[in-house]
Formats: sequence, structure tokens, C-alpha cells
Amino acid sequence: MKVDKQDNATLLGESGAKLTTTVWHHYNIFDLDNFTAEEIGLVIKVADAMKEVLSRPIKKVPTLRGKIIANLFYEASTRTRLSFELAAKNLSADTVNITTSTSSVTKGESLVDTLNTLQALGADIIVMRHYCSGAPNIAARHLRANIINAGDGWHAHPTQALLDLYTIREHKGRLDKLKVVIIGDILHSRVARSDIWGLSHMGAQITLCCPFTLLPIGLNQSPDQFPVVNIEPDIDRALKDADVVMALRLQKERQQCGLLPSIREYIQLYQINQPRLNRARPDAILLHPGPVNEGIEVAPDIVYGRHSVITEQVANGVAIRMALFYLLAGSKE
Amino acid sequence: MKVDKQDNATLLGESGAKLTTTVWHHYNIFDLDNFTAEEIGLVIKVADAMKEVLSRPIKKVPTLRGKIIANLFYEASTRTRLSFELAAKNLSADTVNITTSTSSVTKGESLVDTLNTLQALGADIIVMRHYCSGAPNIAARHLRANIINAGDGWHAHPTQALLDLYTIREHKGRLDKLKVVIIGDILHSRVARSDIWGLSHMGAQITLCCPFTLLPIGLNQSPDQFPVVNIEPDIDRALKDADVVMALRLQKERQQCGLLPSIREYIQLYQINQPRLNRARPDAILLHPGPVNEGIEVAPDIVYGRHSVITEQVANGVAIRMALFYLLAGSKE
Amino acid sequence: MKVDKQDNATLLGESGAKLTTTVWHHYNIFDLDNFTAEEIGLVIKVADAMKEVLSRPIKKVPTLRGKIIANLFYEASTRTRLSFELAAKNLSADTVNITTSTSSVTKGESLVDTLNTLQALGADIIVMRHYCSGAPNIAARHLRANIINAGDGWHAHPTQALLDLYTIREHKGRLDKLKVVIIGDILHSRVARSDIWGLSHMGAQITLCCPFTLLPIGLNQSPDQFPVVNIEPDIDRALKDADVVMALRLQKERQQCGLLPSIREYIQLYQINQPRLNRARPDAILLHPGPVNEGIEVAPDIVYGRHSVITEQVANGVAIRMALFYLLAGSKE
Repeated sequence: MKVDKQDNATLLGESGAKLTTTVWHHYNIFDLDNFTAEEIGLVIKVADAMKEVLSRPIKKVPTLRGKIIANLFYEASTRTRLSFELAAKNLSADTVNITTSTSSVTKGESLVDTLNTLQALGADIIVMRHYCSGAPNIAARHLRANIINAGDGWHAHPTQALLDLYTIREHKGRLDKLKVVIIGDILHSRVARSDIWGLSHMGAQITLCCPFTLLPIGLNQSPDQFPVVNIEPDIDRALKDADVVMALRLQKERQQCGLLPSIREYIQLYQINQPRLNRARPDAILLHPGPVNEGIEVAPDIVYGRHSVITEQVANGVAIRMALFYLLAGSKE
Repeated sequence: MKVDKQDNATLLGESGAKLTTTVWHHYNIFDLDNFTAEEIGLVIKVADAMKEVLSRPIKKVPTLRGKIIANLFYEASTRTRLSFELAAKNLSADTVNITTSTSSVTKGESLVDTLNTLQALGADIIVMRHYCSGAPNIAARHLRANIINAGDGWHAHPTQALLDLYTIREHKGRLDKLKVVIIGDILHSRVARSDIWGLSHMGAQITLCCPFTLLPIGLNQSPDQFPVVNIEPDIDRALKDADVVMALRLQKERQQCGLLPSIREYIQLYQINQPRLNRARPDAILLHPGPVNEGIEVAPDIVYGRHSVITEQVANGVAIRMALFYLLAGSKE
Repeated sequence: MKVDKQDNATLLGESGAKLTTTVWHHYNIFDLDNFTAEEIGLVIKVADAMKEVLSRPIKKVPTLRGKIIANLFYEASTRTRLSFELAAKNLSADTVNITTSTSSVTKGESLVDTLNTLQALGADIIVMRHYCSGAPNIAARHLRANIINAGDGWHAHPTQALLDLYTIREHKGRLDKLKVVIIGDILHSRVARSDIWGLSHMGAQITLCCPFTLLPIGLNQSPDQFPVVNIEPDIDRALKDADVVMALRLQKERQQCGLLPSIREYIQLYQINQPRLNRARPDAILLHPGPVNEGIEVAPDIVYGRHSVITEQVANGVAIRMALFYLLAGSKE
């Protein structure tokens, strides 16, 4: 990709952000494991420029006019699908949405066939959510189009992690050496997994807090394969002096699997509430990937309270996805 | 809102309509109860300008480029949703559609959460249909975005009423002193309720005609709270000298509630047919909010007969919704 | 329609293709039976110009700005619906999608009512797929808007046939005197029926190959009503010296109707595989309307093998549909 000041001025209008040209070599976005700190920094820098676009009276630029972005969702989603769709429209790309319920996926068409068809129809970038871990990686082997993973099984959700990093950096001015506590169902959370990769690349100190039944096995045993994290099952100790608190959505159906004795006990031991948040730093921020189960993982009074940046996360997600579309569209040249 | 001739010329191209600037103070559209005759007149005036746009070879203006309009529908609808969607596109706004069946509403997300998310994603105007009366009013308390009620429970459907008023005025040249007869299931009709408010503000004389089981209770008992109407259960007497006949859709499921002895009896007593229409004025017009149950509330031969303006209502609906988008988008400044 | 070089230059930018102006008199596209070879040639010529547009860095032209194209699908479809939608967007038209599952079709609204509504809302072209043969023809009697049949019952699928013709001509340079073998469930295939009309108009020699239970009755008995074809139930004899091999999708549910003894026997007798394809000409091409049941009508190793042009068919479909939109939009003047 070649992005210099002039391109940037052309592409984004008056935005003054200057993009460096050397660090980006991603053609698809599967997860953050293979990102460098410099590359994450570039995404954040481009997202800054996009956020400036979003603050204009006419929050739309012609950057990706004539590009086709397909949203292929094998799992229901409102906010993620809309975030990608609006990010594309803000850049003047054309979008199409394919969801399992209305497509010939129900005719038994294979994933690779569907992707081939989308590409042959003209799709330049395919945003894909799939219930199988690794589906986007398999898909990409057969395609010229760029793939963005919008969540695959329990594996990864890199765009959510990038918007989390962006939101944290916006509030804290930096990411390294921050104490970040991730609380909740880490075992089943693709958000947590991608956040750990991203935070770790940026030098943050990560503490996981959850019942042992919701913790992935083998953590910290292969430091060359997965980042080293602190594990602290006691929420009060975990929150001590935290800069950033990340809540995860509790999938209520986990209880039936025998992983949780009861929702009531979970709330008692792991709900984030004001008294517990008081143990964190006074300027600590609270993130959640949404939608929140109010009264379960987070107490109702703090969901939109003074620590919460949950609404900002949603807004920043649009800027991050615009940045990724922009960088990927440039990666082909 | 500030709309002067120059703005108008800029925004709508060659359209010569001059918009007055003093009457509009609506930030959301919940119902017509709080509209003045002057404000309804302004909507009609702007809709005239929009209708001129729709008559051009390229029926699209850049007025709302960069604005995002979200259609949030908790009830199925073709014509209303499409009417809003096309009105938005004709003004070059970007649109997204969210319907209950494909959204994470099914994950149990609350209405307020969904609206907050839409706003954080960038939605400037949220068009909302909900099965609960008053849902848009509650929603608006938490939002910066403009809300338009596209139908809430049995309560109100103000954009339908405005297109009805517009269509009547187009044919009759005026609204005041017209005899308007509304026939059918008034009890469950949000359309009737909004029409009564709008017609009453504009000085029309309203006659309701239906079985007593389908009439709201307490009519004419609080003249300061709801407009005074005539009640005439005999359809032949009701139609005498009518200028405007408004049919309502019979919800067939009402019969099971015991409110109707049988569809056959309802047809016999309340179906609008040519012999009955002959008692109205020769130039009387027939309206229906659609979709028509042909052969139930209206005889098949008159649905698209010489009195019918049903198709024009659909076309005018697009102009009315463009006018409201235009006025609301201006209301923020 | 009036299309001269200057218009074309204006409408499609730099594309040099010159369109002749005399042959086109279609206002709707129901099937290819009433097309002349000259008219099919014009569609192909315009599609060539559209394909050039699709090869540009910005594959979008403003030709149909302000036009509204409605996709009304009474049957599930991914590729056909997306192909029309993207064709429309590439020409800068606005699109709306209506599918049975989310529309008030479920309220029992009639087809004609729905179409009238779409037209009144501003739809200029209505693309329509319906499970009843002849539905688009009936619909068009009541409409000013242009109708394109995107598949009706077992009857016709003209846009698929046109993209098939286009793909064949692209590879063979011509259509007349080619030996084209159509293999599979011809009885239930609207694709086969439209292909036979189109191929026959263009002078190709058509051979049908399938079990007798899947062959329409009365073939070759009314040469003035339906093109004359060769019938060869033996696949090896049928494929001998073929220039073009068209596979059809086997509707697995046919087996339950007693029309097929077993899928296994069908595969043994009618699957297209490499040994069988070797009997065709060395430069023979393999087409399939998709989605392919890999391992049933076509052996897995040849679906994307050296004879296959299946992916090109998908890409050409967009160009063909752009051409039809362009020609129909011009047909009104």
C-alpha cells in the first residue's frame, strides 16, 4: 500500500492526518495475532482521520466509490453488521448483505461456493461472520477479494479488539503498561481472545478474572504461542488499581452446560458494580462489547455511568472499520 | 429551523416553493395532536416541493447526502418501510433497515439499547414502528437523533395521516368544512386516531361509522383531550353528502375476540360499495391505508374505481416522508 | 429507444461500443421466445460495453441515477438477487429488496396490489421471481413500470439464458452451428427452457440428455410453438463432439416424486465427469446455472476444472443485467 500525504488529502478531503507508508502488509484481517504494534498504530492513526470525517456536517467521503463490500453473516448480529455497513456507506462503497435466513445457504450451498459467487459478482471486500472457528482463513485461500473476520466461532473478533484498543488509547493516551482487567466468560469469548493479542502487542498488562470453569486451559504454558496473562479469580483483588475494566457478555445458555452453578451466584461473585469499581483507579474506564445483560455481568446503574465508555465503543467501531476498509482497499495495488 | 428561499433553491434544485420559517418546532414526530394547522400546512407545502422533485426525469436531490436514516421495524410492513426507505434515498441519505426477525433484538436487547446503538453508529433520524403504544415517546427521551413514529400499537400513525390530508387537499383544494366519513374498525386503528387529530386541526367535520363494538369508549366526553366527532352507525346515513370516505383495514383476527358476529354480517352492514357510495357527493374520494381486504371493507369493483385515490395515497406518502425528513434534518440547527 | 454513439459515450463514459438503434422493442423481459437474433445480439453488444465498465478501477457509472429498481422475490435466491442488485448499483440506480418472509405478502396482499404499490412508490423497473409460471406476464398488464422476469415457476429464466449465451459467445466467438448439450432435469428447469429458446434463435444445435421421466412431453411435435431439439438419453452419445455442455441443478426433492429411482443411479447414468467430458471437443466448455450439487450432476473435480466457465457465468450475469436495465430504461422514451 502506498499512502502519502497527498493521497490522504485526496481521499479524505481536508483531513490532515499523514499516514506512514511502510508498516502495512495485511491483505485479510483474521485476528490480531499477526499484527505488529506498528501496524495497530497505523490502524489507529487512520481511524483518527476517519473520526474527523464523521465529525463533519456531511460525514461521507467518496474514497471507495465503485467498490463493493459484502456482509456475509452466518450468525445474527445487529450492531456489528450495521457498523460495517455504515462504515462502507460513509466511504461511498456499495454494500450487500447476505444472512443465512434469506440466502440459498439454506439450499445447502457450500461456504466456498458462496464466497466464489460473491467475488464473481464483484465483491472487493467480504466481511464474514461464521459460527466455525477458522472459517475466514479457509475461505481466503480460494479468493482474490479481501476478507475481514467479523467474528468466527470462539476464535477471534479482531475489529472489536481494534475498536477497544482505539477507545482505550483515546481515554488514556497510550496502551502500554496499562492494567487491563477482563472479567467474565473468557473461555467462549472471541472478543477476549482478540483483545488479549492486541493489548499484549501494545504492551498492556492483562489480568483475567472469572470462575475456573470459564477459563481456557493451558494459559501461560506456551508463551511463544499465546501472550502471558495474570489470572486472578477474585474480582476485588483483580480490580485493584485497574486502568481499564473490560466486561464480557455472559452467554446465559452456558449455565445449562454445567459451567456455572447459578446466575445468582455468578452475579454475587463476578458482577461489576460501583463498590467493586471503586477499587480501580479513579479514572478507570469500563468497556463492554455489547449487548449488555444489564444486572448480570454489569450492575444497571453503571452501564451508562461515569466510568462507562460503552457508547463510545460503538461510535469508534465505525471509524475503525472505515480505517480497515481503507487500508485493505489500498493493499491490492 | 431556518429555511429561506435560497436554502430551498440550493437544497431542492429548481423547485420554486418558498418555505416560511416561523411555524416549525418539531424535533420528533410522535402524533398530530401537538401540530398546529400552520405546521401541517408547512408539511404540505414542503411535500408539494418534493412532489415536483419526484416528477423530474432524475427524481433525486442531494439534500440529505451524508445523513443516515435508520428504519427500525418491530412489526412487519412492506409499503410503509419502503416508502420511508425510498423517501430517504430520493434525498440521497443513506439508509439501514433493522427488523426484529434478523436483529439481536432476538438476543433480548432492550429497545433503548438498540436505539442508543443506532445513534452511536451515526443514525441522524430513526424511523420506528413498534407494537407498543407510546414506545417512540419513551425512546426519544434518551436520544439526540430525531424520531419518526411509523406506527405504535393502536396509538398513532402520523405520517399516514399527513399523506391522507395531503391527498384530500390535492383533490378538494382545502380541508376545512369537508365532510369526512371514517368507516370500519376504529377501535384498533392508529390510522383513524391520527387522521382524526389532523382533520380536526384543519377544520374538517368528521363522522365515524362502525359497529359499537369497534368504537373507542368515551368519545366526545373530554372535548379538550380528543376532537369532537359525529357518530353514525348506519353506513347509508353516514355516507350522505360525504366529500371524503376513508375505509379502514378490517383486522380479521378481531372476529375471534368476539367483537364481530361474522365477517359476512360485517360486509352486509359496513362494506363500502358503489350503491352506498352513490349517496356521497358525486366528486367524493375514497381513501384506504392499504393493504385492502378486497371484498371485505371495500367491494372489489371500487378499490381502483373512479372515486378511489388509494394509489395516489401511496405515491403521496413518499413526498410527505421526504418533507418530514427535510424538516427534521433542519430542526437540529 | 434511441441510443447513438454520443448517448453511449455520455452514459457509459469512455466505452467506445456503438449501439445500433433499430432492433429493440421490448418493454418487459418475460422470456426469450419473442426475441429475434438481432435483439439478442444487441443485448450482447451492450453487455460488452458494461463488461468494460466493470473492468475499470471505479466500476460504477451514473447512467441510471435517480431510477428505482425493486427486487421482488417470492422464492429464496442469493446469486440472482445479488446479481440484479449489484447490476443496479453499478449503474447508480437505487434498489429495494422485497422478499416474502419479511413483507406484508404474509398479510395476504395480492401480487397485483404489491406491484401497484411498488410502482406508486416510484419503482421504474421491477425484477420479479415468482413460483407461478406466467406471474410476470399477468403482472405487467397492470403496470407502467418495466418488468424483468427473474424466474417464474418451471417456465422461464431469460436473464440466465442471456448470460449463458453471452458466456458461450465469449468463448466460441459465435453461437450458430455449435453443438450444445443440455443434461439433467429438463422437465422442471426454467433455465433449460429459456436456454433452448435463446440458443435456437441464434442457430445453435441443441441436444437434450436426461431420463425420460425428466423430459417434457410433446417435444418436437409443434415446431411452430417450440424449437426443435435432438433427444439423446445416452450421455456418452450425447456428449460426442459437443462444443458446449450445460449441466442443470438436480432438485433432490424430485426423487420423492418417484421421477428418479435413486440419486445413486442418476449419478451413474447422468453425472458429468472427466471421462465423459473427454468425448466432447477438446475446447468444450461446461456451464451450470448454480448452485452446483457437487458430486451429483457434476463430478467434484471438474466443477472448477479446465472446461468450467461457471464462475465466468456469474460475472457475466452482472453485465447482462446492467445491459437489460439500460435497454429497458431507454425503452420508455
